[in-house]
Amino acid sequence: MSKIEIGHGSGGKLTRELIEKTYLRYFSDEELRPLEDAATIDFSGTKIAITTDSYVIRPLFFPGGNIGKLSVCGTVNDLVVSGAVPRYLSLGFILEEGFSIDSLEQIVQSISETAAKSEIKVVTGDTKVVEKDKCDGLYINTTGIGEIARPMNMESISAGDAVIVTGTLGDHGTAVALARDEFDIKASVESDCAALNELLTPLFKIAGLKWMRDPTRGGVATVLVELSETSGLGVEVYEERVPVREDVRFIQDMLGYDPLYLANEGKAVIVTSDESSNTILQILRKHPLGKDASVIGKVSSKYKGVRLKTRIGGERILDMLEEDMLPRIC
Amino acid sequence: MSKIEIGHGSGGKLTRELIEKTYLRYFSDEELRPLEDAATIDFSGTKIAITTDSYVIRPLFFPGGNIGKLSVCGTVNDLVVSGAVPRYLSLGFILEEGFSIDSLEQIVQSISETAAKSEIKVVTGDTKVVEKDKCDGLYINTTGIGEIARPMNMESISAGDAVIVTGTLGDHGTAVALARDEFDIKASVESDCAALNELLTPLFKIAGLKWMRDPTRGGVATVLVELSETSGLGVEVYEERVPVREDVRFIQDMLGYDPLYLANEGKAVIVTSDESSNTILQILRKHPLGKDASVIGKVSSKYKGVRLKTRIGGERILDMLEEDMLPRIC
Repeated sequence: MSKIEIGHGSGGKLTRELIEKTYLRYFSDEELRPLEDAATIDFSGTKIAITTDSYVIRPLFFPGGNIGKLSVCGTVNDLVVSGAVPRYLSLGFILEEGFSIDSLEQIVQSISETAAKSEIKVVTGDTKVVEKDKCDGLYINTTGIGEIARPMNMESISAGDAVIVTGTLGDHGTAVALARDEFDIKASVESDCAALNELLTPLFKIAGLKWMRDPTRGGVATVLVELSETSGLGVEVYEERVPVREDVRFIQDMLGYDPLYLANEGKAVIVTSDESSNTILQILRKHPLGKDASVIGKVSSKYKGVRLKTRIGGERILDMLEEDMLPRIC
Repeated sequence: MSKIEIGHGSGGKLTRELIEKTYLRYFSDEELRPLEDAATIDFSGTKIAITTDSYVIRPLFFPGGNIGKLSVCGTVNDLVVSGAVPRYLSLGFILEEGFSIDSLEQIVQSISETAAKSEIKVVTGDTKVVEKDKCDGLYINTTGIGEIARPMNMESISAGDAVIVTGTLGDHGTAVALARDEFDIKASVESDCAALNELLTPLFKIAGLKWMRDPTRGGVATVLVELSETSGLGVEVYEERVPVREDVRFIQDMLGYDPLYLANEGKAVIVTSDESSNTILQILRKHPLGKDASVIGKVSSKYKGVRLKTRIGGERILDMLEEDMLPRIC
């Protein structure tokens, strides 16, 4: 009898397998099929985006944020990369018996502040309590609703398009790994945890903007592999153009992790026509959250899959993450 | 330092305290304030209801249903009692490492069947995996969106209105209690777990219909206490008119629980003008899910609070549940 493994939550291959074999056998709704971060639904002519995420991060508090801030940013970002203006948020708490009400209050305060900053309204909520050892402090589900302002889909992507990332990769995964105190490394890396509505909504008016995605679980590599698999196109990535903080690169070299696979919580991958790529870069770089934006690659019709052109002149195939290298980072 | 207790998830006094002291200090959005089961939001002129619930029931499978069926029914019912036609559903799974994929598949199948029957579409989802002993098999969050077809609010309630329940009380709480095998009682009680859209949406056209609520955690008593506290009106309940199955009454007498406080998952409390109460009863009783519908009480302006006129001619004040008498029944 097969059992759930940690890797089923990686956002990589096993997750995809679970979705295909277990979920999609029973759900065939056309809204669900595209498997984007948010579904698009039609409400009496108004196009609405809806997205849901459960947050089970460990530890609950980490440099640069906590599970509350994360749960708002993650859902706001899923809406924004879908071309939607975030509007409403629901909150579902699962609390472990014995959890500190002071900590809960700090988390709720972060949710409130982050929601206000992201201009999204918390409109409904639910709290359940479970016995000790049936949770890990608390889990949060946020479901977000936004109004589609700029429809986007993968089908508009074509050979020659540019692939942009909005900033340095792997800050979140590294910050959380260090916060767990499992590694004997002293360094101060902050999570990039941020809501991207202010950074990304100005791009909605750029005609060449084609597709966006926030590279959380599985990182940028997983996003690009999914893009390649679904579109049937190839992606070429230039390692030297991938922005990674010096300390993050150093730490991840030691740990043997690749920043391209690490989770981010305040970054976006953007696909744009080549002509619009400079305009988009300029807009991004004017904002503090986009100052390190970089064109890291381009779309090709000559092959399928994702190829990394390494710094030393070699080439490496980037595949989907097999296992969860760092579970519960979001 | 205060800590979360099991009772904070009861839906009763402690839950209310947590909401008032911890959540509402930070959220002041007018949509959240009414604290109804679903929030009403405005989307370019279309009124939309949104509701969220996490399901942490133990055991996952019980006579009459499982956590999957429950998670759809609960959310569909929250929409319907808010006067909305259910439309879209999101699904968030938290899975425990080692959980059987066969069991997951049974649960997903139930979700799919129940959603189809309730005419609600699953449009987006999320899966997270946590280590052993950080969950209890699986937890599900469902967030539902519906279109408001019949706005309702407590403010329309006035003295003389009738209080109806759509069927026997306490079946779900009793079925789950027995399924836990903690009591040495052999009996076969099924949960009433059902989606109420087919039963209740025909009532939307009745002018005298004023307010509905599904009595889950905390039961009918808690719903009526909340109604009384918020409206400032009193409610008189006649014990002899409260429908309870013979075997449920017998078992709950032994266990010392009051069916008025037990959770239901396929029942509604309805407040209607006295004139419309017979029409509503007739409509309800024509449907299998409403065959035991009964007027159990009336609204009064002469006092506040909820008074139970007992079978033997006495009177008892019904208060909000202090503690969780049966945790994790929904």
